[in-house]
Amino acid sequence: MFERLYGKAKKFLIGRPLKNEDLHDEKLNIFWGLPILASDAISSVAYAGEEILIVFIGVIGLLSYKYLFLTALAIGLLLIFLVFSYRQTIDCYPNGGGAYIVAKDNLGVTPGLFAGSALIVDYILTVAVSASAGTSALISMMGFLSNFRVEITIFLIVMMTLGNLRGVKESSRMFGVPTYIFLISMFTMIIVGVVKVTFFHQIPTAAFPVPEATGSITIFLALRAFSAGCTALTGVEAVSNSIPNFRDPAQKNAKIVLMLLALLVLSIFGGTSYLATMYHAVPHENSTVLSQIAYSVFNGGFMFYVIQITTAVILTMAANTSFSGLPLLLSLIAKDGYAPRQFAKRGERLGYSNGILLLAVASSLLVMRYEAQPHQLMPLYAIGVFISFTLSQTGMFMRWISIRKEGWVFKAMINGTGAMITFVTVIIIGVTKFTHGAWMVVVLLPFLVWLMRQTKDHYEGFARQLKLSPDNVDEETENIDVQRHVVVLVSSLNKASLKAISYARDLCEGRNIVAFHVSLSIEESKKIKEKWVECGLDIPLIVKYSPYRELINPLVSYIESEEHQSSIGDMITVVMPQFVVSTWWHSIYHNQTANAIRKRLLKDRHVAVVTVPFVLDR
Amino acid sequence: MFERLYGKAKKFLIGRPLKNEDLHDEKLNIFWGLPILASDAISSVAYAGEEILIVFIGVIGLLSYKYLFLTALAIGLLLIFLVFSYRQTIDCYPNGGGAYIVAKDNLGVTPGLFAGSALIVDYILTVAVSASAGTSALISMMGFLSNFRVEITIFLIVMMTLGNLRGVKESSRMFGVPTYIFLISMFTMIIVGVVKVTFFHQIPTAAFPVPEATGSITIFLALRAFSAGCTALTGVEAVSNSIPNFRDPAQKNAKIVLMLLALLVLSIFGGTSYLATMYHAVPHENSTVLSQIAYSVFNGGFMFYVIQITTAVILTMAANTSFSGLPLLLSLIAKDGYAPRQFAKRGERLGYSNGILLLAVASSLLVMRYEAQPHQLMPLYAIGVFISFTLSQTGMFMRWISIRKEGWVFKAMINGTGAMITFVTVIIIGVTKFTHGAWMVVVLLPFLVWLMRQTKDHYEGFARQLKLSPDNVDEETENIDVQRHVVVLVSSLNKASLKAISYARDLCEGRNIVAFHVSLSIEESKKIKEKWVECGLDIPLIVKYSPYRELINPLVSYIESEEHQSSIGDMITVVMPQFVVSTWWHSIYHNQTANAIRKRLLKDRHVAVVTVPFVLDR
Repeated sequence: MFERLYGKAKKFLIGRPLKNEDLHDEKLNIFWGLPILASDAISSVAYAGEEILIVFIGVIGLLSYKYLFLTALAIGLLLIFLVFSYRQTIDCYPNGGGAYIVAKDNLGVTPGLFAGSALIVDYILTVAVSASAGTSALISMMGFLSNFRVEITIFLIVMMTLGNLRGVKESSRMFGVPTYIFLISMFTMIIVGVVKVTFFHQIPTAAFPVPEATGSITIFLALRAFSAGCTALTGVEAVSNSIPNFRDPAQKNAKIVLMLLALLVLSIFGGTSYLATMYHAVPHENSTVLSQIAYSVFNGGFMFYVIQITTAVILTMAANTSFSGLPLLLSLIAKDGYAPRQFAKRGERLGYSNGILLLAVASSLLVMRYEAQPHQLMPLYAIGVFISFTLSQTGMFMRWISIRKEGWVFKAMINGTGAMITFVTVIIIGVTKFTHGAWMVVVLLPFLVWLMRQTKDHYEGFARQLKLSPDNVDEETENIDVQRHVVVLVSSLNKASLKAISYARDLCEGRNIVAFHVSLSIEESKKIKEKWVECGLDIPLIVKYSPYRELINPLVSYIESEEHQSSIGDMITVVMPQFVVSTWWHSIYHNQTANAIRKRLLKDRHVAVVTVPFVLDR
Repeated sequence: MFERLYGKAKKFLIGRPLKNEDLHDEKLNIFWGLPILASDAISSVAYAGEEILIVFIGVIGLLSYKYLFLTALAIGLLLIFLVFSYRQTIDCYPNGGGAYIVAKDNLGVTPGLFAGSALIVDYILTVAVSASAGTSALISMMGFLSNFRVEITIFLIVMMTLGNLRGVKESSRMFGVPTYIFLISMFTMIIVGVVKVTFFHQIPTAAFPVPEATGSITIFLALRAFSAGCTALTGVEAVSNSIPNFRDPAQKNAKIVLMLLALLVLSIFGGTSYLATMYHAVPHENSTVLSQIAYSVFNGGFMFYVIQITTAVILTMAANTSFSGLPLLLSLIAKDGYAPRQFAKRGERLGYSNGILLLAVASSLLVMRYEAQPHQLMPLYAIGVFISFTLSQTGMFMRWISIRKEGWVFKAMINGTGAMITFVTVIIIGVTKFTHGAWMVVVLLPFLVWLMRQTKDHYEGFARQLKLSPDNVDEETENIDVQRHVVVLVSSLNKASLKAISYARDLCEGRNIVAFHVSLSIEESKKIKEKWVECGLDIPLIVKYSPYRELINPLVSYIESEEHQSSIGDMITVVMPQFVVSTWWHSIYHNQTANAIRKRLLKDRHVAVVTVPFVLDR
């Protein structure tokens, strides 16, 4: 009953299974590809500007707004460089040119794994940050929700997970519409706001007073603000990594989406920074900067609520970028043997279910640890993605230099500049955020790379041990061809053991069959011997008394002694009955001895275990 | 390596395994039996008086001390009745006459199970309450420990568990010495205190002011205080339940221990109540009543610390009463078939390890839930044990009436009075504590009884299905004697599957062997067919394409169709290779498909599964 319920619930939540042949239907065109892959970058305007202000506002007071604008400008420039760099990557890697592939191809395996690990970490953080920021948007609108910050965030992640387990195409539809609503309402807000400020000179009073300046601007402060703002740029990677998700012509579509993405981010980031400056928005725990702008522009009317809700929705959708990016990346790494194979297997609905689940669990843990406070998560964020940017751009640079095809100098210059700029950014982020948490990421990456190498080693050793070429079939067959000894395990003389005995006798006619019993008391030994005779069983019974009330060791020593007497290559067949219970919770009534015995016996390559089921009714 | 470390740690903590034949050495004499079985009752003086005062002090102020004395008197009388009642039980039940056995014998199975469940609940609570109260004693001495209340309590429970897994005799030694130190220091404190008050009229000022009276004494208040004080009487049951733990003459020894226990409880409870009255001790979260008395008597000197430490130790030892009582009780219930059999199995050191572990886990959960505050746990406490007292005394009463041996009238009167008094106590506790938590126990008991009945039903059905008498051996054997079909599962053509094929070919000479492969893509299907031919394998290969990337269902439908074609009683033998990894964590690399397939196939009574191990190096 439990299993049936589970099956029904799964079907309802995830949908009916899809065939392999349905796969080509699940691709994205530009119209749906833009919202699903660009929402991460676009939505980050909801917190990137705020993070910059948090750095400045306590120190330089009103001057913050001037430097907010300058910082946004610098980040905008960085974005333009990234877009041009990544256009070249899309050209060269039609099957998806994430940093992992580009770095591995052009710089070697270890840089590739570093880029891959960095991206994995950042995808997970994107989910945690975006879902938390989405919750913040809701709380800015309805303050009483602040008591359920963590619960709401986890709920958003769960919904996201279910949507993605359903499959790529359905998720794009489901998530695309709100992204467009968000874009429309953001542009409405910016236009209305700019018009009000420019033509009507309406500047409402701010919700919170701007703190007095306590210091002056320093280079370190400016760099910290820049690092904080870099969180806006984490979505760019997703597009070039996801080319196989696009409908043909995939590369062209991806490039268009990338350009549109950059334009949207630039205009919205610029527009909201301008309005934040005009309205003197001040970061506050239960009221985001964006919500203060929206409130001022629309005087808290209907459109304020539309903005808050669509912001929350698009931030949640942003998490979805990771839900399409991470499982794909993990499947690539798994196909190369650097991650467990389960990540390369498509689930019932053709998504990489295991990657999706890993992402859901890891990000939920982060949300719980940092209590769904976006600002707490920020120091861990962005460093990973800039490491992968750097490795990827460096890889492209090396590629042009080694290939030297027509026009390579210009192309190498673009990617070289990209590499340099992103490398400088890594240093800036690393230095300014190191003590705030970036060190964790720095420690984690080498560890992940080591794990991936271990995994590869294991699979290589595994393949070597299994490899069979047509030439050595005969010799392999020769090795295992005699097996005379058959041991039937008997716990007591009942129908189940009789079934096992009958089965063994029929299967192994003419072989040497013995029954083996471990008894926990001397009484028990006597009793089973008597019953054996009484029942007239014609195969010999060996009874071993185990004074330490231990079942497995006496059995193992008996089998090892038998093995000793047989010639090399002989296999011993152990036949054992196993009770099969009809209800899952009945298994507590039958201790898991059968499973434990089998597990132990199979450690010996010369023992095969035959399980004869005895199905219990009810 | 992991397993070796585990083995070593276990040996160090628990000791080397003991043989069945060592069992008789593990019995208790009077000198060691008293501390191990009486510590529960004796130690409850550390909180019972305090609980009575908590009820009174907020309401009737200074008058509390008068009623404390009266309540203590009533509880003392109750104890005397219980002792006489239980002496008769010990006479009649030399193999341990816990409430479970007595009620089952004389009242029927359901009352027996109720008594058993009630005792189980109370044993668990005894551990939680005593360990928490032990921690309170430590905190009264060293206030800074109050931040680690839960941690300290759990640590105490873990130490207790390890001690008990080592075995009965060692634990009595380990735990007996501190009980005697406690007794000596308590008597010293009482004598010194009484002498100071009586002869020198030294009455120090109290640590905390006695609150003003806000109401007057009511019957309900008095009854609530009585219920609170009844927590002192939970240890009595343990003695008569544990007669088999005593050295011969076991019954005589048990009766002596019971008498000594009552004398000790009466004198210490009386003495401390007197001193609490004289010194006007007031309950306080971080300073127990007992610690206030000890501080006053010894002026906070060396003996104060001795009292606090030995109180903490003996309270922990009190938990140990449950650690010897509950596993024994559970083993009796399990032997009757009302609890899973695991509870009737002796562990490596001859203790009932599973019962010990259950107790440790359940009490730790309670401690965490109630933050190790004894006062929070009290409302759940004592009701269970008085339910079992009542059932046990009623059982004894019925016994005398039905047997009518010499002197039965007098004996029936004693047990009848006992039953009545304890029944009234159950009603009092139930009514006065119901809304504070006693309702949980009231709800839990019928549920436990239902579970136990379910368990019995299962085991009975199980035994019926398995039962084999010498007469039906032949007919059972007849049923399973043909099995022609052998299916070898092949995931890809490698050494492991070749080993399985060779094994199957040799084992089942002349039978109908086929290889079966489920492929997840059409490519894969082609590839394996080609390689099969290339390798020159002479058994037919069946390839099934699974568009939903699902392995088990195609296999099951194939086997069901095969089964359909064969005659009734035929068994199909499925041979499958299984990788055996050398390090436990390597199992994440190989998905658990083999286990899942076997588990599914065994649900069919006509399928036997042969597992051929392929051991991976490193």
